[in-house]
Amino acid sequence: MVMRHKTPRLTLLGAGPGDPDLITRKGWKALQMADVVLYDALVHPDLIAEIPTCVRKIYVGKRSGSHCATQTEINQLIVEAAHQYGHVVRLKGGDPFVFGRGMEEIEFARAHGIQQIEVIPGISSAIAGPAAAGIPVTSRGLSNSFWVLTATTLDGAFAADMEKAAQSDATVVLLMGMRKIQAIAELFVQFRGAETPIAIIQNATLDNQRTTIAQLGNIASRLHEVDIHAPGIVVIGEVVRVGEHFASASVLNHNLSH
Amino acid sequence: MVMRHKTPRLTLLGAGPGDPDLITRKGWKALQMADVVLYDALVHPDLIAEIPTCVRKIYVGKRSGSHCATQTEINQLIVEAAHQYGHVVRLKGGDPFVFGRGMEEIEFARAHGIQQIEVIPGISSAIAGPAAAGIPVTSRGLSNSFWVLTATTLDGAFAADMEKAAQSDATVVLLMGMRKIQAIAELFVQFRGAETPIAIIQNATLDNQRTTIAQLGNIASRLHEVDIHAPGIVVIGEVVRVGEHFASASVLNHNLSH
Repeated sequence: MVMRHKTPRLTLLGAGPGDPDLITRKGWKALQMADVVLYDALVHPDLIAEIPTCVRKIYVGKRSGSHCATQTEINQLIVEAAHQYGHVVRLKGGDPFVFGRGMEEIEFARAHGIQQIEVIPGISSAIAGPAAAGIPVTSRGLSNSFWVLTATTLDGAFAADMEKAAQSDATVVLLMGMRKIQAIAELFVQFRGAETPIAIIQNATLDNQRTTIAQLGNIASRLHEVDIHAPGIVVIGEVVRVGEHFASASVLNHNLSH
Repeated sequence: MVMRHKTPRLTLLGAGPGDPDLITRKGWKALQMADVVLYDALVHPDLIAEIPTCVRKIYVGKRSGSHCATQTEINQLIVEAAHQYGHVVRLKGGDPFVFGRGMEEIEFARAHGIQQIEVIPGISSAIAGPAAAGIPVTSRGLSNSFWVLTATTLDGAFAADMEKAAQSDATVVLLMGMRKIQAIAELFVQFRGAETPIAIIQNATLDNQRTTIAQLGNIASRLHEVDIHAPGIVVIGEVVRVGEHFASASVLNHNLSH
């Protein structure tokens, strides 16, 4: 049997915030031309099901048990798959360069002989998550900037930038902050006041999207409404009032094409 | 002649950062089902050319002269077109909720009898612009957050948040800041030092993409390399070093599918 020689190649691809139709046309073309797709837990199953059957699909979100695949394991799998099969598409939820550890995967691949590397951006849930709840991250007169942070690195004490974010006028978008919401709200209350609106959006852009809108001062009493163990996007700032307005008016229909 | 009654309807749609293939699948479907498309100067002509010929296309980026169409004129055109033809797709460069005045268009449309309103996000150049130059807005060990601001509202004096951004550790992404680069660099030098890297990316994701990487302390002497009157994305922070590294190694190929 003659094996066709394949040049190892990596495409780092963002799948978008949830809705399978929010992948880009360019990303969809890459999936169709892939030899192997390595995909994360946050990628919608319907998108995976659409990929041609001749493309190998490997789930690297979690191992068969309950533990996450380590970044080292994923890096190694990318390199092995590229040398064995050719074109690896590494498919990640959201955008690969927003807390995605995408650059680590690129550097590892490059250090292990993969020269053809491409990045195809995805819609980041940091912006589209709020949008799906009717919340624009910027809006004239309400907010002229937005600051996207993660809370996962916080261990008891807050990172210095979290306090600076609380002091700023920026719309603050927190990813991976669900378990810290109460402490974050307490910090922000000191600088922005208890009546500052806060939104929590889960399953953004999907049929089971759920938005909780409250104030910094009473969010603690509303946490029973959210799944604190699932991913969610937290938005703090005056722009949240816009979402409140539109949510109550039921004007926005984000699933019109479904 | 019998006219079919059409329900006025508005879809606010982000076209992405430049490359016509960086529109989402959902956005492309909306364009095909539109009765009228109102599009901006930042939307790629190739994307407009792809829209079926039966769809009316109206350019609202600039008037026939050299003046910009006012926001009021665009708002009115959206409403008139929706009542006359049915489904208006308002196609904007990037994402409609990132400095896009999208919410103003929604509120005007709603106040004028348009009840069916949908928002379809686009890839924001705030994230994808840096990515196209090999710069991840976040990267473990280099930056745990990014702050997106505009400099157009600055009139001589800087907005308070610009100084806070300079004081923070965040990757700072500036949109619409090309003409203010020198003043911005001078402000950031005070807090982050003259050796802090800065990148200017123009025509991101297109064949004529151009990246200028310098330091805050010497960017002034490099400004002859950029078109200061054209749109551009400015990135300040340690993550820019990653782009410098990759740009020199020519590892990233962002136009593989072209």
